[in-house]
Amino acid sequence: MPKGQPLNVPDDGLTTRQRRNRPLVMVHTGPGKGKSTAAFGLALRGWNQGWRIGVFQFVKSAKWRIGEQTVLERLGALHEETGEGGPVDWHKMGSGWSWSRKQGDAEDHAAAAAEGWAEIKRCLAAETYDLLVLDEFTYPIKWGWVSAEEVASELAARPGRQHVVITGRDADPALLEVADLVTEMTKIKHPMDAGQKGQKGIEW
Amino acid sequence: MPKGQPLNVPDDGLTTRQRRNRPLVMVHTGPGKGKSTAAFGLALRGWNQGWRIGVFQFVKSAKWRIGEQTVLERLGALHEETGEGGPVDWHKMGSGWSWSRKQGDAEDHAAAAAEGWAEIKRCLAAETYDLLVLDEFTYPIKWGWVSAEEVASELAARPGRQHVVITGRDADPALLEVADLVTEMTKIKHPMDAGQKGQKGIEW
Repeated sequence: MPKGQPLNVPDDGLTTRQRRNRPLVMVHTGPGKGKSTAAFGLALRGWNQGWRIGVFQFVKSAKWRIGEQTVLERLGALHEETGEGGPVDWHKMGSGWSWSRKQGDAEDHAAAAAEGWAEIKRCLAAETYDLLVLDEFTYPIKWGWVSAEEVASELAARPGRQHVVITGRDADPALLEVADLVTEMTKIKHPMDAGQKGQKGIEW
Repeated sequence: MPKGQPLNVPDDGLTTRQRRNRPLVMVHTGPGKGKSTAAFGLALRGWNQGWRIGVFQFVKSAKWRIGEQTVLERLGALHEETGEGGPVDWHKMGSGWSWSRKQGDAEDHAAAAAEGWAEIKRCLAAETYDLLVLDEFTYPIKWGWVSAEEVASELAARPGRQHVVITGRDADPALLEVADLVTEMTKIKHPMDAGQKGQKGIEW
């Protein structure tokens, strides 16, 4: 965790406090594990700060439900009950939409992805959330269903104080350019290499 | 997320189900962000499965309290109240122990770290938890306060079905050897590079 003095102090006319409180665009990319898991870990931190959390999950399948959804929705309900933490909305983008182009009809997927992005734009304009998690959002961009340049310019121009974290492999250079923080997760070793399949609690 | 058939099927006499359910040692290392955050994200998944979660945090300072501690302890309390999820214990290893050797007395730190490791060994032998998060545990190993070889052999010989995730930079080769899954978090871009300091909700 970074601490102490930053390496460079930019000549941007901001005070340290203003610079510190600048909202961030974060990208978790690369072929390794932990991209989404770290994003949901960030959502935990944000919830604890009382932030309004919006998850936009570009899901493998509408039936797919990961443990994080259950827990974050439970934390959102806890906020409603007791006022602890912040509210949580979990959006599955495009019911039945899948990142696998092998299933279903590509045009439907493209339309569902475009509608998902339109919803994200509406939320950004309305400043609905303090932290937006755009989970696996690199894929509809990669497949040309959503324009990387438009995403980058919308993010750069977003109003107020909205943190955004985007996960997925092969993040577009336009995303990396607009991001304040980019982490690449690299696979050094994985149980699949030793013939082990995924298991509950670890992979979902 | 891995799916489908593994690349290799080892000749280890295990069925796919047995192999799938094998407990894992996971290491999150490298200089990038997301090592601890992804580990606590895994703890969310495990909690949702009803697992007993034990966090052993080799903390920067006893006063340091990260958002994940508040939330995971809250989830543990929720388990007590309603039976949802699993129980959570959060151990700060060595009150006042710090990963910064610049502060305080190195011998005290070494003794506190050794005691922390002794507690982890007791929990492993007693099979107290289903998932153990050893947060920033690479540092006491790196500084010679805990033997990497002993950690590796204890982990390899641990009884029952205990998942273990270890976070921190510069993981010892003995840890990587015993691990089933190793992810390296690489820093591509960080706000510190642009003169921005850490902020609440993002860094803690």
